[in-house]
Parts: sequence; structure tokens; C-alpha cells
Amino acid sequence: MGATVQGTISTEHIGLFKNVIGEAFVFTDEESIQHYSHDETENLQYFPEVILKPGTAQEISEILKICNQYNIPVTPRGGGTGLSGGALAHLGGVLLSVERMNSIIEIDERNLQVTTEPGVITEVLQDAVKEKKLFYPPDPSSRGSCFIGGNIAENSGGPKAVKYGVVKDYVLNLEVVLPTGEIIWTGSNVLKNSTGYNLTQLVVGSEGTLGIVTKIVLKLIPLPEFDLLMLVPFKNLEQAGEAVSAIFRAGFVPSAMELMEIDSLKIVSGFVDSTAVSITDDTAAHLIIEVDGSNLDVLMQEMEAIGNLLTQYDIGEIYFADDAQQKAELWKLRRRVAEAVKMIGYTIEEDTVVPRAELPALIRGVKMLGKKYDFEVVCYGHAGDGNLHIRIRKEGIPNSYGNQEMNNILRELFGIVKDLGGTISGEHGIGLIQKGFTDIVFQESNLRLMREIKKAFDPKNILNPGKIFDI
Amino acid sequence: MGATVQGTISTEHIGLFKNVIGEAFVFTDEESIQHYSHDETENLQYFPEVILKPGTAQEISEILKICNQYNIPVTPRGGGTGLSGGALAHLGGVLLSVERMNSIIEIDERNLQVTTEPGVITEVLQDAVKEKKLFYPPDPSSRGSCFIGGNIAENSGGPKAVKYGVVKDYVLNLEVVLPTGEIIWTGSNVLKNSTGYNLTQLVVGSEGTLGIVTKIVLKLIPLPEFDLLMLVPFKNLEQAGEAVSAIFRAGFVPSAMELMEIDSLKIVSGFVDSTAVSITDDTAAHLIIEVDGSNLDVLMQEMEAIGNLLTQYDIGEIYFADDAQQKAELWKLRRRVAEAVKMIGYTIEEDTVVPRAELPALIRGVKMLGKKYDFEVVCYGHAGDGNLHIRIRKEGIPNSYGNQEMNNILRELFGIVKDLGGTISGEHGIGLIQKGFTDIVFQESNLRLMREIKKAFDPKNILNPGKIFDI
Repeated sequence: MGATVQGTISTEHIGLFKNVIGEAFVFTDEESIQHYSHDETENLQYFPEVILKPGTAQEISEILKICNQYNIPVTPRGGGTGLSGGALAHLGGVLLSVERMNSIIEIDERNLQVTTEPGVITEVLQDAVKEKKLFYPPDPSSRGSCFIGGNIAENSGGPKAVKYGVVKDYVLNLEVVLPTGEIIWTGSNVLKNSTGYNLTQLVVGSEGTLGIVTKIVLKLIPLPEFDLLMLVPFKNLEQAGEAVSAIFRAGFVPSAMELMEIDSLKIVSGFVDSTAVSITDDTAAHLIIEVDGSNLDVLMQEMEAIGNLLTQYDIGEIYFADDAQQKAELWKLRRRVAEAVKMIGYTIEEDTVVPRAELPALIRGVKMLGKKYDFEVVCYGHAGDGNLHIRIRKEGIPNSYGNQEMNNILRELFGIVKDLGGTISGEHGIGLIQKGFTDIVFQESNLRLMREIKKAFDPKNILNPGKIFDI
Repeated sequence: MGATVQGTISTEHIGLFKNVIGEAFVFTDEESIQHYSHDETENLQYFPEVILKPGTAQEISEILKICNQYNIPVTPRGGGTGLSGGALAHLGGVLLSVERMNSIIEIDERNLQVTTEPGVITEVLQDAVKEKKLFYPPDPSSRGSCFIGGNIAENSGGPKAVKYGVVKDYVLNLEVVLPTGEIIWTGSNVLKNSTGYNLTQLVVGSEGTLGIVTKIVLKLIPLPEFDLLMLVPFKNLEQAGEAVSAIFRAGFVPSAMELMEIDSLKIVSGFVDSTAVSITDDTAAHLIIEVDGSNLDVLMQEMEAIGNLLTQYDIGEIYFADDAQQKAELWKLRRRVAEAVKMIGYTIEEDTVVPRAELPALIRGVKMLGKKYDFEVVCYGHAGDGNLHIRIRKEGIPNSYGNQEMNNILRELFGIVKDLGGTISGEHGIGLIQKGFTDIVFQESNLRLMREIKKAFDPKNILNPGKIFDI
């Protein structure tokens, strides 16, 4: 699916942009337009009219003032790995990439904080602080290519969230350019803050609709020295879900607790050409369980205790990753599964989240819907958080967005999620593709409040308009 | 300081309130008016015109509709332990106490969550989940009398925050009655949520200005089985501050890291008649350091390692609390210090917070100001978070609020805090007494955004008007 350019940009506007950021950073060539016309969302493609690559908050401020004056829609973009269409310029206009703003400004070892620009790749940031024996836990599967700025926009999670929390739990302070061009800091570089409304947390997860984040102050923690990883095959998918909440009820807090349905593991093993996991015929799903900490003996005891607890389920032989290479191999399988299943037609991904113990019921519901509406489905995700990624393949329907048949199916799915006490996005955001479903989880009053907050930040609705909700 | 009633309430209004919640829960007698005329803030007293004690969200909704219609200011109130004047009815009108809404609705052991009403005393809630081996960490010093609803309003912290975070880190979902009478849930009962703007985090810490919280869903974690506590005497106050950040830089994460200046310990020891700590003449301050976890051997190693690290400072003999009774005694001294120092005239309390490593500089600044402006000062607080409570006694000035001389002093103090990268409240809120200083830490744009958010929730400015900012 694609869209035609809206024609909001004139030669005059292009000239104004060139004056602000220099000719070298204003792109209207076809190759650029093509390159920035999609992210990782379904099969969607929308063409911006111009791509701008500013280098400073001040330049972004000038750009937004121009766009505000001429009512030009602006779509901010990080690494382009989003899964809800937040970085798609579906109304044409300006696509504003923060890719040039890619400096780690300061790692403050005295206060365990890092200040960074938004265009830094998440893994680069993690590696930089790791060198100082510090840890920034949130690690979306796309961490090798996503930007920390995009992670802020979507309130990203990843496998470590189950123990360490998501992006919002690490953001102390943000420099934000408002759609009006004002530049603000949302808070202070402190660990506790009861000084006025929490504008920081309002911007985190706002999907680039309230402002463009230009500096980020993150809390860091001491790097755990050791981690242990095991892979547990389950003969029954629902039992895998039950085991997840049993582990937490027993008082363990693993640093990762991932679920992979057998089909997803088979597909990704083929995709990355890995034989790391020998898959037996009677396996329905695997749990990947990691513990981390600074005392190896304690971790080994913990792993053993978790293993013992799991013997009450119908499991196969537990595989312990022995060394860094084996761990990396297992994580590669988990991290690349989305890419692998998308490649063979599972283009539609849902990001449902329910209270942890409701995971088996959600899985049952998904399978039931698959049969009822004749679609293929593979599930995987952050089981410890109740966050299940559901990949759907249905002949002739590569996108949920704009497809009535798939929308009806998803509406039923999200109804199940809602009934289980859950919601429609755990870490991907609403963006373009889920905005038709927010009535399932929000009351009208919630939407009214969000629209009025949007108006307070962006009175002319120029910044990422039509994402999350329509005004 | 007191204020006269504004006369916004008529007999007719009283009749309407009685129709909604019943005559038994509408109070206009002098004793009640007196009782609800102050909280723990300085020496301030303001008289509400009527006290309402509703029992349900629906009743609160009806009350707010009436107040919205007749422009009656409503001051919500929890346990009345606030330190920034948030629960003071400084404009008269209705004081709405949630004290009857004191049920713990459900402890969900499958999902490690608790749903509670706002009028539950924080310690009661903590004890109830503890019985199920679960842990709700935020523990303000007033936990024996404050309400969980008030903790939400102020985004409270307490000693455990240094390891476990503050209230905002545990709130999953809130039922809120908006000033217009609409009743909403702000989110879902899930651990991760990227579904629209984070209204939950917007309400947390909004000091009762955006809505009245009527149900609260909190995340729980497994209860750590063991904790160890030690008291370390320092001969130099600034060195105590330096030691705090050294401990974190070395990779330790204590579950409490409290600072008590010697005068504060002397005063509270006398106040509670305790001889638990033998105070030597050359001691300037103590650090209270706690570690907790589920492996006692590891904790003992950790305590020893922290003790070893501290030998590089000029410290006295470290005191280890041997049993539960000794621990309780030490915590009693820490928890009751505010009450003790207030009793002897240190009525003015500031709640400054700076990046952790800047604590020595902040302490230096405070002492310098004490000499310069001739006031007595004792410091204590959550050193691990950089959150320093500063208690001030100055002849003839029991309140900062409304006192020009003290305001000038505080303005200079907060200027120092700001220069160190900090802010004016870490856990007490802005309320009434700090609102004159927000220009030091906020830009005009921040205040504009907050005012517009307030307007979106409360178009007629009836709910806790004049707290945090004036409209």
C-alpha cells in the first residue's frame, strides 16, 4: 500500500529549509524519497515530499517554526525500525531524520548517567556505557539499528524489561523542541522528582507527536557481571505460558523470560542458517530464561531451582548455553525472528500485552481466532511481561491497515485482550496501524484528554499528525 | 498563619452534598473544621468551609459535578501528612477526605499486583502484601499514617527508593474522577504499555490537581527475605556525602542509604528517648546503610565490602544492627526525625534533590547560607538519591510561605540546587509553599504546558486550585 504525495511543499519552502540547515542536508531526490518511504511496519509505504537532516536542536526549532507557519506536516524519524508506522509520512510533507545527531554527549560516571543525542544506535550506547562497567538495560530486538530517540518515542522494551523495566524507567530528563519551535527541558537530571507535572513521562511514548527529542539523560545502573541462559522445550504451548507465572510466583526474577512458539524457532533457524537448537517433533514452544547478577554461585543455584520447578510441566531436555558464543547464538535466534517470519509473509504483527498470568488464555484465544478466520499465526515475545507478539499471515492481506477483513479479525483479538485486562500495545506504539482500535481500550474521556494535551503542545497539529489518534 | 473562609458555600450547597453522600458524612462543626485545617506543612492553617467524606467514586463524581457547576474549590485530602500544603484548603470551600475509602480490594498473587482504594494507610498495605511474601517498596517516613492515595498525589519516595524506585515506578493503573465528574481508568493492569499518552504517569505526582484517585493498581515484587543494616559515623559531613556516591560507583546498590546530620540524631534520640546510638563528640553525621536480598551470605559479603570501602574516610566505629529490634530502633530514629526537629522550632522543611555526587556541594551551600543569613539548619534525608531534607529554624519566622525574608533565602538556596543540576522537590511536591519558586527550575514554556494540561482536565479550575501554580 502506498500514498500519493499531498503537495504541501513548495519550492519556496525548500528554499527556507536550505537556509536553515544548508543545501547538503535537504533531500528531494527519488532515491531518498524511496528510502524514507517505509519503516518495518507491515508492507506499508508512504512518500515524504522532502527529507531534512538537521544537526542541532536550534535547526529543528527553525524548521518547526517554518512548518508551523505554513501548516506543513512533519514526521520525525529515528532508525526506521518501528512496527506501528510512527515514522511513515502518510500525509506527505517533511520527513525529519535525526540521524546526524548521533553523539553520546557525556557518560557521567560520578552520577551514573548518560546524556546522548537521539540519533545514537541503541547498541552503540549500550556498548559505550558497558566499557565503564555501566548498564543501560532496555534492549529492543532491533537494538543494532534502532535509535535511542525512537526508543523514547515508543517507550520501547525488549527482553530485559522483565527484570529491569522499559525505557520510561531510565529517562531522567529530555530536551525537546516543541512544534511551535520552543526548546524545553522536561525535568532535571535527578533520580527523584516531584516538581510539577511529569512532562518527561508524557513525552516518553508519545510517538513523536508532542515534540522532537534532541537530548536525552538516562539513568544507568552497575553492570551485572554474570548471566546464565537456558532454553526449555515445552510440549504444550499453554503450559509454557503457565510456567512463566509460576516462576515469578516462586519468587524468581529472571533477567529475561522469552517465549518462542516452535514455528517461529524453525523459521528463524532456517533464516539465519543455525543448528544451535535441535528441534524435536513433540516440542510446541520454548522458553528462553536468563538470570543475571554479580555472584555466579547464586545464579547457578537460581538456575537449578528454576529448572527443578519446571519439572512439574511436560518439558523436554533443558539446554544450558555454556559460553558467550552459545548465548549469542540463542539471542540471535530470538532477536531475528520478526525479520525471518516477515520475510515469508507474516507481515502483520500485533503487540498485545496482558497481565502475566493471563498469557495462556491469550494464546488460546489467538489460536481459536486463527482457526475461525483461517489465518496462519506464530507467537513469540516477552512472556515474563505478558507481552505477546502475534505474527499473522493471510493470503492476499499483507497489511492490516486499510483492510476491513483483517480489521474485523483484530477487533475480535483486541476484545479478548481487553477482557483479559490487557491492552493493544506493550512496546511498539499505536502509530498509524492501531489507531482504529483505541476505542476498545480507551474511554472517550481518555481520548479527549489526549487530544487536548496534543493541542497544548501542537496547536496547529503539524507534528506527526494522524498518529495515535486523529484530531 | 491562617486564612479566613471565602464564603463560597451556601446552605443550598450543603443540602446538595447531603443528598449525595448522606448527612452523616457532611461536616461543618468547628472541631472538624479545626482538625482538617492543617497538615504537616510548616505552621500553616487554613479553614475549609465543609468537610465531605464520600465512600465511592460515584459519590465523588456527583460532588465534583456540583462543585463544577457552582465554582466551589475542592481540596482533596489523604492522611494529612503532606509537607508542601497540598491538602490545605487555602481558598476555603470543600475539603474532600478519602478516609472512608480504605479497602484493599484485591491482592492478585497470580500477577503480583494489588488493587486498593486511596484511603488505605501505606504501612497497612505493605503489611497486607507482606503476608503473601510480596513487597510494595515505597515507604515514606510517615508510612504509619499517610494514605496510599496521598503517596500517588505526591509521587512519594522514602528510604527504599534508592534501590527500588518511587511510587511512580509501581503504579500500573488508576481510576480517577475528573473535576468534570467523568470517571476514567488511566491505563491497563499491565507491566508494559505503549498505548497512547501516559495519563497514569501524568496523574502520579499531580498533587490532586488533575483528578481524585479512587482506585489504584500497584505492581508488587517478591519480598526479599533478608536485610542487614549498619550505621556509620563520619567525622566530616561532606565526607559522608562523598562516601555515598563512592559506594554506588563501586557497583553496590544498597536498599537504603540515609544521611543524618549529628544534630538531627541528637534531637530525635531525645525526642523518642532512645539510647540506641552512642554519640561521640567528634561525629558530624551518620550514614544508615541497608542491603537486602534473598541470600544472607551474599549480603554479609556485601556489607563487609562496603565497610572496607568506607575505611578510606574519616569514620568512627561502624555499628551493625544485630536483630529485628535493633533495626527497628534505628529506623524509628530516622523516621521520626522530622517530627522531632519540627517540635523544637525547625518548622521549615525543604526537599531539595541534586545528582547524587553533588550532595557534598549542596551541603556546603546550605551551611554557607545558614551562616550568611543567621539561621539554624539540620540536614538529613535520602542521600543515595541525592534527596536532602533541609530543616530551618529562624527566630520569628515559623513559615516560609508568606514570608519575604525567608523567601529570599530560599530563592538563593534553590539557585544553588539548580546550578548543581537539581530541582526543588524530590518527594514532597510543590503544593502551596514552593509554587513561588518554580520559575527557578521551569522555563515559561513548561509552566504554560502544565497550565494547559490542567485546563484540559479541569476547565473551571475547581480542583485543588492554586497548588503547584496559579492559573
